[in-house]
Amino acid sequence: MILTLEKLAELTESKVKGDGSCQLQGVMSLEEAGEGQISFVSNPKYKKHLEASKASAVVLSPVLAKDYSGNALINDDPYLTFAKTVSIFHTKKIPLPLIHPSAVIADSAVISKQATIAANVVIEPDVVIEDEVIVGAGSFIGERSVLKKNVQLYPNVTLNSDTKVGKNSIIHSGAVIGADGFGFAPQKDKSWYKILQVGNVIIGSDVEIGANTTIDRAALGSTEIANGVKLDNQIQVGHNVSIGEHTIIAGGALIAGSTQIGKTCQIGGAAAIGGHLKIADNVIISGRAMVISSINEAGVYSSGIVIEENKKWRRNAARFRQLDEMAKTIKRLEKKLEEREEGGLS
Amino acid sequence: MILTLEKLAELTESKVKGDGSCQLQGVMSLEEAGEGQISFVSNPKYKKHLEASKASAVVLSPVLAKDYSGNALINDDPYLTFAKTVSIFHTKKIPLPLIHPSAVIADSAVISKQATIAANVVIEPDVVIEDEVIVGAGSFIGERSVLKKNVQLYPNVTLNSDTKVGKNSIIHSGAVIGADGFGFAPQKDKSWYKILQVGNVIIGSDVEIGANTTIDRAALGSTEIANGVKLDNQIQVGHNVSIGEHTIIAGGALIAGSTQIGKTCQIGGAAAIGGHLKIADNVIISGRAMVISSINEAGVYSSGIVIEENKKWRRNAARFRQLDEMAKTIKRLEKKLEEREEGGLS
Amino acid sequence: MILTLEKLAELTESKVKGDGSCQLQGVMSLEEAGEGQISFVSNPKYKKHLEASKASAVVLSPVLAKDYSGNALINDDPYLTFAKTVSIFHTKKIPLPLIHPSAVIADSAVISKQATIAANVVIEPDVVIEDEVIVGAGSFIGERSVLKKNVQLYPNVTLNSDTKVGKNSIIHSGAVIGADGFGFAPQKDKSWYKILQVGNVIIGSDVEIGANTTIDRAALGSTEIANGVKLDNQIQVGHNVSIGEHTIIAGGALIAGSTQIGKTCQIGGAAAIGGHLKIADNVIISGRAMVISSINEAGVYSSGIVIEENKKWRRNAARFRQLDEMAKTIKRLEKKLEEREEGGLS
Repeated sequence: MILTLEKLAELTESKVKGDGSCQLQGVMSLEEAGEGQISFVSNPKYKKHLEASKASAVVLSPVLAKDYSGNALINDDPYLTFAKTVSIFHTKKIPLPLIHPSAVIADSAVISKQATIAANVVIEPDVVIEDEVIVGAGSFIGERSVLKKNVQLYPNVTLNSDTKVGKNSIIHSGAVIGADGFGFAPQKDKSWYKILQVGNVIIGSDVEIGANTTIDRAALGSTEIANGVKLDNQIQVGHNVSIGEHTIIAGGALIAGSTQIGKTCQIGGAAAIGGHLKIADNVIISGRAMVISSINEAGVYSSGIVIEENKKWRRNAARFRQLDEMAKTIKRLEKKLEEREEGGLS
Repeated sequence: MILTLEKLAELTESKVKGDGSCQLQGVMSLEEAGEGQISFVSNPKYKKHLEASKASAVVLSPVLAKDYSGNALINDDPYLTFAKTVSIFHTKKIPLPLIHPSAVIADSAVISKQATIAANVVIEPDVVIEDEVIVGAGSFIGERSVLKKNVQLYPNVTLNSDTKVGKNSIIHSGAVIGADGFGFAPQKDKSWYKILQVGNVIIGSDVEIGANTTIDRAALGSTEIANGVKLDNQIQVGHNVSIGEHTIIAGGALIAGSTQIGKTCQIGGAAAIGGHLKIADNVIISGRAMVISSINEAGVYSSGIVIEENKKWRRNAARFRQLDEMAKTIKRLEKKLEEREEGGLS
Repeated sequence: MILTLEKLAELTESKVKGDGSCQLQGVMSLEEAGEGQISFVSNPKYKKHLEASKASAVVLSPVLAKDYSGNALINDDPYLTFAKTVSIFHTKKIPLPLIHPSAVIADSAVISKQATIAANVVIEPDVVIEDEVIVGAGSFIGERSVLKKNVQLYPNVTLNSDTKVGKNSIIHSGAVIGADGFGFAPQKDKSWYKILQVGNVIIGSDVEIGANTTIDRAALGSTEIANGVKLDNQIQVGHNVSIGEHTIIAGGALIAGSTQIGKTCQIGGAAAIGGHLKIADNVIISGRAMVISSINEAGVYSSGIVIEENKKWRRNAARFRQLDEMAKTIKRLEKKLEEREEGGLS
C-alpha cells in the first residue's frame, strides 16, 4: 500500500508539515527507516536522532516539529498517531474461514461458519465459537468454553473447561487458562489434601494475554479479567483473582490467589503481589516491587534494591541485617547528646 | 447430587448444628453461596461475612459455630472438612478408557487398556502407561517414560525421554518435564561447550505440578521430586535438584541446579533459591525471598523490601548504597562520645 | 561403547595417571559412579568426596591429581574435559530423515530431504527447513520462518511467523519465539490501542533456548539473539532486545523491551533488567539483581537482600523505610559533635 503524507494526515486526524505529496509505504524505527518509510519520536530524549534519520516522514508533536526541517505528521499524541499509522499499513490478514480437516471437534461443539480452526486443534463437547474467531494450530479448548466474536488464539494455547473469552480478545501461544488453582488443605500426616478447583475463568472483551501466561480457574466462582486488560508474557494469575478494566501488567508479574486489582492500574514486570489483597484503582506499581499488603489509594508505589558494584553491595547487604541495631544506636546517641546539652555543658 | 447436612456430617466425620435434614447440592464461597449451597469459614477474620451469608449451611470450627445461628457442620479442621465436602459434591469425572485414533503411538509403547489417550497425543517407543492414566490432548511422552497408575496429564504437557511419574500424580498444561539442564563449560574463545544432559527426572506419587512449570533432567543421575510434593505454576526446577516429601512451593519460584530441599518445607511464590544449596526439613521461606546459602535449621526465613510510596522509596533506596558508610559513622560517633565520657567531661 | 582411559586421554588431549588400560563405559557423578564409570572434580571444594568415590577414573586438574591415588585423566580444564567425555560416551542419536505423515505442511514450504519432521507438526507457507534439522512433535512453525542446518526444535515449540534460526541452534519445549511484543498506546478513554508488532526475531547460530522461554518479535525491525547465546528456561525477552555473542542467561531472568545486552555477559537467574538500557560487554549480573539503569563498564554487579530469620527481617525491613531519616540524623549528630569539639570543650 502506498499513501501520501496528506492522505495519512487525513486518516489519523493530524497535520502535515512539508511535502504532503510525499509517498509512504511502510513504518520503521528512526534509526532504520529509509526512503518511503515513516517513523516517529514521542520522547523528546530521542530528538537527537531526528535530523540523522533517513525516514521520508516522521510523526511528531507540535513542539518537536518546530525544529524539524523534514516532512512531518503533526499530532498532539505522536505515539498513538504512530500506532494508528502502523495499523493503516499493516491491515490484519484475515484468513478465509476454514476448519482444517486435522482438527478434532466434538459433535456437540457449535462452531460459526465464519470461524477459522487451524490444524490439530482439539475442541471438546459443548464449546461455542462465534464469528471471525481464529483458533491457532495445536490449541486445545476444553468443554463448555465460549469464544465470542473475533477472538484470536495463537498456536498452542490451552483453554481448560468452562473458560469464557469476550470479543476481540487475543491470547498468545503457550498461555494456559483455567488450570487448577493451587489449593491444598494440610493433613495430620503432613500430606496435602487437594481442594478441587470447581470454578472457572472469565475473560472480558478486548483483553490481550501474553505468551506462556497462566491464569488459574477459581476454587469456587470465577477468576475474572475485565474488559480491556492487557497482560504481557509469563504472568501468573492465581485462582479467584480479579483484575479491573484497562489495567496493564508487564512480563513476569505474579498475582497470588484471591487478590483484587482495580481499574486502570499499571503494574511493572516481575512485580510480586501477595494473596487476598486489594489494590485500588489507578495504582502504579514499579517493576520488581514486592506487595504484601493492600493499597488503598491511587499513587506510585515501589520497592527493591538496585544493583551496584558487587563488592559494595556485599558490604551494604551485610549492614542491612544490622539495620534495626543501627537505628537503636542512633537513638541512644541522640539521647546522650541531648542529655549533655541539657546537663553537663550548661 | 443432593445430600442432607446430616449425611454430609457422617461422610466428613463432623457434627451437625441446626437442621440436619437441610438439603445441600453444592459448595460456594460465603459471599456467593445461596439456597442449597454449603460454604465455610476457617479464618476467624472472615467471621463478619458469616451472618450475612445466604448459604444453607456453613462448615465451622466449634468456636465460630457457637455464635452462629444458622445450620453448621462443625469440625476442628473446617478447611480440610470443606475440602472433603467439595470432593463429595464434585466426584472426578473418569472418562471411558479410550485411545483416540489421532494419537500417534509407537509400536513398542505399552499402554494399559484402562488408560485414556486423548486426541493428537504423541507417545514414543518403550513408554509404559498403566491403568487409569489420562493423557490430555496434544501431550508428548518421550521414549522410555513411565506413567504409573492414575496419573493425569492435562492437555499440552511435554515429558521428555526417560521421565518417571508415580501413581496419582497430576501434571498441568504447558509443564515441561525433562528438558536439558543448563550446563555449559567455558572455552578459551569465549564460546560455551554444551554438557550433554544424560540424566532424567523422577517424580514420586501424589505429586502435583502446575501449568508451565519446568523441571530439568539431571546432567548425570536424576532430578528427584519426592512423594506428595505440590508445585504451583511457572516454577523452574534446575537439573539435579531434589525436593523432599510433602514440600509445597508456590508460583514462580526458582530453584537452581543441584540444590536439595528437605521434607515438608513451604516455599513462597517468586522465591529464588541458588544452586548447590541444602535446605533442611520443615523450613518455611517467604514469598519473593532470596536464598543464596544453605539453611540448616527449621524455621521461617524471609527477605525483601516491601513497597512504599515511590518518592520515599527513591530516597531510602539511595541511602541503601551508603549503608556501610552509615554504619561506620555511627561507630565513630559512638566511640567519640565514649571517649568524651571517660575523658573531657570528668 | 567401551574405551580405555588411554584412548580417552588421546581423544580429550589429556594425560593419564594410573592404569591407562582401565576400561570405561560411561560417566557419572562422583557420589554415584561405580565400576566402569568416569567422574570429575573441578571445584577443589568437592575434593573430600574424591577418595570415597567408586568411580573407575576421575577427570582432575594437575593439582588435585597429585594427592589422588586412583586412576585419573589430567587436564588443566577438568570441567571442559569432562564435558567432552560426556559427549564421547553419549553421541547424539540422529534420527533417520523422515516427515511423519501426520505433519501438516504447506505446499510452499521447502523442507530438506535430510530433515526430520515429527508427528503433528504444523508448518505454514514459505517456511524453509535445511538439512539435518529436527522438528519435535507438535511444534508449530509460522510462515516465512527459516531453520538453518542442524537446528533442533524439541516437542511443542512455537515459532511465530518470520522467525530466523541459525545453524546448530537448539530450542526446548514450550518456548515461544515471535509472539507479539507488549506495546500499547494510551487513549483518552483509558483504553489501550494495540501497536501492531510488525518486526520479527532473528536467532544466530549455536544458540540454545530453554523450555518455556519467550522471545517477543520486534515492534519494528528485529529482536536479535546473537551467535552462541545460551538462554535457560522461563526467560522473557521483550521486543527489540538484542543480546550479544556468547552471553549466557540463567532461568527466570526478564529483559524488558529495547534493551541491548553486550557480548559474553553472564546474567544470573531471576535477574530483572529494565527496558531501553545498554549493558556493556563482559558484564556479570548476579541472580535476582534489579537493573534499572545502563551499565557502561565490565564488572560484577549485584543487588538484593538475602534471607534471615523472619522476626529479624521484619525489624530490619521496617527500618529500611526510615533509612533516609536515619542518614539525616547521623549527619546531624556528626555536625553537633564537631561543633562541640571546635567550641564548647576547647
